[in-house]
Amino acid sequence: MRIEAIDFYYLSMPTVEDIGDGSQDALVVRVAAGGLEGWGECEASPLTSIAAYVAPMSHGACKPLRDVILGQPITGVADITRLAAEVEMQCMDLLQAAHTFSGIEIALWDLLGQASGQPVYQLLGYRQAYPKLPYASQLFGDTPEQTLTGCRVARERGFRAVKCGWGPFGKGSVQLDRDHLHAAREGLGKDGILLIDAGQIFREDVEAAAARIPFLAEVQAGWLEEPFLGGAYGAYAGLAARSDGVKLAGGEASHNFHMAQQLIDYGKVEFIQIDCGRIGGIGPAKRAADYAASRGVTYVNHTFTSHLALSASLQPYAGLKDHVICEFPFAPKAVALDMTTTHLLPDSNGEILIPDTPGLGITMNIEGMRPYLVDTELAVNGKVIYRTPNL
Amino acid sequence: MRIEAIDFYYLSMPTVEDIGDGSQDALVVRVAAGGLEGWGECEASPLTSIAAYVAPMSHGACKPLRDVILGQPITGVADITRLAAEVEMQCMDLLQAAHTFSGIEIALWDLLGQASGQPVYQLLGYRQAYPKLPYASQLFGDTPEQTLTGCRVARERGFRAVKCGWGPFGKGSVQLDRDHLHAAREGLGKDGILLIDAGQIFREDVEAAAARIPFLAEVQAGWLEEPFLGGAYGAYAGLAARSDGVKLAGGEASHNFHMAQQLIDYGKVEFIQIDCGRIGGIGPAKRAADYAASRGVTYVNHTFTSHLALSASLQPYAGLKDHVICEFPFAPKAVALDMTTTHLLPDSNGEILIPDTPGLGITMNIEGMRPYLVDTELAVNGKVIYRTPNL
Repeated sequence: MRIEAIDFYYLSMPTVEDIGDGSQDALVVRVAAGGLEGWGECEASPLTSIAAYVAPMSHGACKPLRDVILGQPITGVADITRLAAEVEMQCMDLLQAAHTFSGIEIALWDLLGQASGQPVYQLLGYRQAYPKLPYASQLFGDTPEQTLTGCRVARERGFRAVKCGWGPFGKGSVQLDRDHLHAAREGLGKDGILLIDAGQIFREDVEAAAARIPFLAEVQAGWLEEPFLGGAYGAYAGLAARSDGVKLAGGEASHNFHMAQQLIDYGKVEFIQIDCGRIGGIGPAKRAADYAASRGVTYVNHTFTSHLALSASLQPYAGLKDHVICEFPFAPKAVALDMTTTHLLPDSNGEILIPDTPGLGITMNIEGMRPYLVDTELAVNGKVIYRTPNL
Repeated sequence: MRIEAIDFYYLSMPTVEDIGDGSQDALVVRVAAGGLEGWGECEASPLTSIAAYVAPMSHGACKPLRDVILGQPITGVADITRLAAEVEMQCMDLLQAAHTFSGIEIALWDLLGQASGQPVYQLLGYRQAYPKLPYASQLFGDTPEQTLTGCRVARERGFRAVKCGWGPFGKGSVQLDRDHLHAAREGLGKDGILLIDAGQIFREDVEAAAARIPFLAEVQAGWLEEPFLGGAYGAYAGLAARSDGVKLAGGEASHNFHMAQQLIDYGKVEFIQIDCGRIGGIGPAKRAADYAASRGVTYVNHTFTSHLALSASLQPYAGLKDHVICEFPFAPKAVALDMTTTHLLPDSNGEILIPDTPGLGITMNIEGMRPYLVDTELAVNGKVIYRTPNL
């Protein structure tokens, strides 16, 4: 079969707020081939990723993804690998291509899973999917009291692990950060797994990050995530050398396998967090998971959007029994929930089970998507080169 | 003064060919502040970079550049540094942002140069600009005979250095590559500097690249450029360890300073090639030049488009006397020449002199641009969010 159609649907809440909540919009991709359809999702800035799909060619190594992928044969996993390599070469100078391709690539896995009657994790070579322990991913409160309440609510909803991130952390005094950290620990309780996300706030300033280490150790933080700019491996390694047992996490910005590999090798993180909607899809994420396992580093999904993205993000390490923690969008906006009828909710053990059904195991909710659909049109020299397709 | 307007002009040849020639289109940026205007240029895929400027916000760390930059104060170099940091944080999840910002950032340097009456290289802290020795950058021919002719033409036009790249190199037999290499050397003559660009053709395959090393050594190639995918530092280092005196070059894909730093530290290149239209502009390129110099690595500009981009690309290492080689678009398409009235042509010594006039020293040719202007329109929910401004 051949890739007959690739349709992008840009969904958004009516109002997008200036907060660190990635569930406020989505770029959903539908790929059709051989009477089947697969679904995927690109992370962030839907309009820009659509433009990368249709933009006129600049030269032989800067083509839009449409020119490279549409009409190509897709009969097995090797075709996905081949297409990914073609995109790397033919879209070399189109920076956004990795994000756009991510959603297409995920949809191709979903489609191949349906064609073969297998869950994606089996196509990846895993015989079994192990349950994952979700952490409730949320923002720090504006005040320590709000942080405490947020963590308590998560615990009361059955979460044994919570991540607090962004918000005021790292922006004010060290003492204020300490208060937030203790409030989070108090809200979560002594036994919970407490994870902290600095959202790159310290840029390359190892001293500023190191000043928080004693307090992270006091509250037994399970990791400190993204203290620095994504590529500042030297800063990561510098902090790792003096982190007093506080492990570093990072990697969500990786837009190819090598960036993940390098954050492990040079940045000395002990948790590598991969977003399938950015790294180029499930294939390079699986390669990152294999590499992490070979280096004694724990793989963790990064996802802050829908349950379609969540399922995709779990496949690359589904069969890694000892890589247990998973990010779980705790309080997503309505668009992220309404776009699928399937939701991967914690079971009675508080764990997430990866679907055992073909493909990603997620049923899309067409009617649920419709109210959020953003009508988009791109025209060049008076000719429309993209218009939101029918849903 | 404040940034009052940022206008993007997408220029293109009527027909863009599927060849490795980056001069077939351009995205030119005009920034207005305090009655002055500065000009810059983004590298590749104009429509995608425009989309990154206007795309609706996805969340607090995924804003369009317009929201971050327009209206901001710009009175000195520190403002450029501050804006770059803001873009890194507020456009963190918008991959294309680095390319879009590059053009804006270049225009800001041009504007500040005019405001202060100084060439950009002086704003960067250099007291003097040293002449650069241009290499004629061209594609390998389809046959060794064509390669020979191309190099001979360059030599006859006074170039003492030539780079051959892309085309058939690495795609066929080792013997065919050898024939092309010897043809290039024959065309250029014994004394010329011969540079070879593999265009990432070997991906991560060190053996395939290493098989060409003896022939590169035979023809005394000055460097082997981009044998591998931009992030495959392990492959770079592996080849560097067995390169028999053939030096490696790379770095054009760097879209932040750290990527350049890492290719030096981990990839062991001896020439670091930076495209100001991709790395985030002149500021991070200067930082890369400083870093290269401190590590005994030679900085080289990467540019394959207009003389506006060429001037921008020379500023970051203008004052590095021992970093002599510069890339020079040898046979650009008409759009790349017609958009400026200033052209930085080799002098009687065959060298390029960096303009001594304020800013980038390039006068734009508005009438020259007009025939190439691509009318572009982006609309979301029926509302036009971008339309090509008047020129």
